[in-house]
Amino acid sequence: MAEEIAQHARTASALLKTLSDEQRSVALHAIRDGLAANKEAILAANREDMAAAKEANLSSSLIKRLDLSVNEKFDSMLSGIIDVANLEDPLNKVTLATELDDGLTLYRLTCPVGVLLIIFESRPEVIANITALAIKSGNAAILKGGKESYHTFKAMSDIINEILKSNTSVPENSIQLISTRGEVADLLKQDQYIDLVIPRGSNELVRNIKDNTKIPVLGHADGICSIYMDKQLDISKACKIAVDSKINYPAGCNAVESLLLDTQLENDLKLQILTALLEAKVTLHVEPTYLAMISDLVEKYPSQIVEASESDFSREFLSLDIAVKLVNGVDDAIAHINSHSSKHTDAIITEDKIAAEKFLQGIDSSGVYWNCSTRFADGFRYGFGTEVGISTNKIHSRGPVGLEGLVCYYYQMRGSGQVVGDYLGGGGTRVFKHKSLDPKNISLAL
Amino acid sequence: MAEEIAQHARTASALLKTLSDEQRSVALHAIRDGLAANKEAILAANREDMAAAKEANLSSSLIKRLDLSVNEKFDSMLSGIIDVANLEDPLNKVTLATELDDGLTLYRLTCPVGVLLIIFESRPEVIANITALAIKSGNAAILKGGKESYHTFKAMSDIINEILKSNTSVPENSIQLISTRGEVADLLKQDQYIDLVIPRGSNELVRNIKDNTKIPVLGHADGICSIYMDKQLDISKACKIAVDSKINYPAGCNAVESLLLDTQLENDLKLQILTALLEAKVTLHVEPTYLAMISDLVEKYPSQIVEASESDFSREFLSLDIAVKLVNGVDDAIAHINSHSSKHTDAIITEDKIAAEKFLQGIDSSGVYWNCSTRFADGFRYGFGTEVGISTNKIHSRGPVGLEGLVCYYYQMRGSGQVVGDYLGGGGTRVFKHKSLDPKNISLAL
Repeated sequence: MAEEIAQHARTASALLKTLSDEQRSVALHAIRDGLAANKEAILAANREDMAAAKEANLSSSLIKRLDLSVNEKFDSMLSGIIDVANLEDPLNKVTLATELDDGLTLYRLTCPVGVLLIIFESRPEVIANITALAIKSGNAAILKGGKESYHTFKAMSDIINEILKSNTSVPENSIQLISTRGEVADLLKQDQYIDLVIPRGSNELVRNIKDNTKIPVLGHADGICSIYMDKQLDISKACKIAVDSKINYPAGCNAVESLLLDTQLENDLKLQILTALLEAKVTLHVEPTYLAMISDLVEKYPSQIVEASESDFSREFLSLDIAVKLVNGVDDAIAHINSHSSKHTDAIITEDKIAAEKFLQGIDSSGVYWNCSTRFADGFRYGFGTEVGISTNKIHSRGPVGLEGLVCYYYQMRGSGQVVGDYLGGGGTRVFKHKSLDPKNISLAL
Repeated sequence: MAEEIAQHARTASALLKTLSDEQRSVALHAIRDGLAANKEAILAANREDMAAAKEANLSSSLIKRLDLSVNEKFDSMLSGIIDVANLEDPLNKVTLATELDDGLTLYRLTCPVGVLLIIFESRPEVIANITALAIKSGNAAILKGGKESYHTFKAMSDIINEILKSNTSVPENSIQLISTRGEVADLLKQDQYIDLVIPRGSNELVRNIKDNTKIPVLGHADGICSIYMDKQLDISKACKIAVDSKINYPAGCNAVESLLLDTQLENDLKLQILTALLEAKVTLHVEPTYLAMISDLVEKYPSQIVEASESDFSREFLSLDIAVKLVNGVDDAIAHINSHSSKHTDAIITEDKIAAEKFLQGIDSSGVYWNCSTRFADGFRYGFGTEVGISTNKIHSRGPVGLEGLVCYYYQMRGSGQVVGDYLGGGGTRVFKHKSLDPKNISLAL
């Protein structure tokens, strides 16, 4: 069953790859229109999910996330599809062109990755966004959403498949919805058909998937972000950035979890930063040696300062908690972060350009910031127009990933009968020209 | 032990990442000079390997490959190091720059992947090439070479480490040599320290590594390349390309293994192509239905034509053998190749531009060629100046991989106190500018 689903996706992806941007965009418009025309049926399915969630006594915040009928959520879901359709075509961009010899030219073009397996949370509107991203980038996608939204997902994917089947050049099997965890487990074994797994969800989900598949996984398990407060900082920036990075959205993967204070930073400034966090209701987990030095502060905020354990410095709190530690200057900060962070996003606060440049170059994370909040690590804030996810991988895509995380490249060679045996190194005497051509001037008849 | 090696590499990589191109190139020149100064000691170690190989009755072709003293092999190894040093710096290239707001700018820069584990064959000169590639691209590398060259590898890596230790800013542990398979097995578990494994060797080696690690693997197990002969072809190109693709170097991963003939191609032309291969001493493995149609040819070359099994069309012969099959036009050829090839390199031979464009777009391989030999799939022929390997992966790097396969990117954000809470979507009212800057005009003080 899983193999069949994966094979169908592979077959669909081979056709999808050859469609023009217009054909892909037409399909997205048709999907938007189809979902709009079936709004009532979708909302009815959504009410089923809501009723089941209430019966199962799920939390009110979860039930609120499930509800597709409030706050123009449905309409903004629809306009999100058109936003993706309107993005620049990520495919068939010529990124390298080299004339190897007369009548023998090499081109590198962007192309879809192929078949995606995307596992996501229960927010019902996400299925529309993911469908749009997959089709726009020419990838076939197998989707598994959180079970709490199953009826809504099913209603929407039935409509999407019906539209693809009857109205568009995009093959129906480009988007397939699966419903059980068992199917996911079987699909994770289909590495001959599936090219990339994108899990969007809890650390546990991501870690579990990474541990159980040979297919490359795009995403992040942890977001352990740090801020280093250098001795030569502007205190108002420091307080503002520390507080924003921690409290703007503590459950976000880009929220700060560790605060490193330069031992040479004036004591009074250190206390101002900590006080700003304490006043913002943050609990400080302070390393023992430094804790002993701030007894006045402990006395003033007894319930918000606790002793940090060593593991607190490799911990994603996802709450109003932060680990606090002294370090000996920027080198020590870099060494600590490189061995404790999850390679997501880390920041330095300083007015010292030399320290800043050292930090920007020395930190081995997908995002390295100088004098701004870690919360900026986000595809929309980066100006990508959309976000597939945030990657802490070391290859392919790092940081917030836009559509280009769903594409790779291939080489075309266009010749006129050339063989290697005629060239030097292959047995002959001809010499390659290797003349670089400007990709901007290349127009391949696609 | 493996963990310690991996940790040392990780520590070295953090420093290596921050060095300038000049510092990295100076180290490569020092290594070249050091190896040159110790030529006699290295050749003595090489003679030890040769003696052991002869004693173990290894094949004469293997012994020839081990011999570093012949044909200016040593000198060309040394000049190869300088060639790599002279390549354009792959690091710290700004590939995207966006002004998010006044005084808040996002940059995307190329950076090393981090720590590489490279497993390679017994040719002793390869260690110099790999060392040069790793250092030039700012990656730390753990190396394991074929055991037949162990003494030569050991002599060279001792010299390399000595030079790095005493003369250069590149840390000594940037290059570490390991000697046993057991160490490889343990290193494949160090996914928290090692970022990429690059196996260069037999299918079996690559497959075995892919099956036993969670670390991403760059490379290819099989090279099952196909050529499709379209009905509207130029027969002289067809014969020349078929023969070159098969016989120029049959053991190469870019040699053709399957020949697909359009049923509508004139019978006489089909026979001319097959005859050209037969005359070049190639054995044809022909599918049964077509075999029945070419009895005259079978009579003429009885020992070179055999019936193909289904598995012959998913087989890497690596010898003067080729599987032959009829297909119904370009669509059928695309479908066959997409389900049987190893996504390495496939070619169409045709004078019909429409069929060619369809093939170029429809084939899901790293290289898709029109009217030229599959043997062109090679980093030097592509003009990359060097080759790390050939990748059949679907993400990160595909096809022949130059230095850029050893780099990825990260984001720098340079601000002046900005926080997300001030912006729309984060709780505030400020709107992002998202003004694209031309990366060419950016010069970051690195």
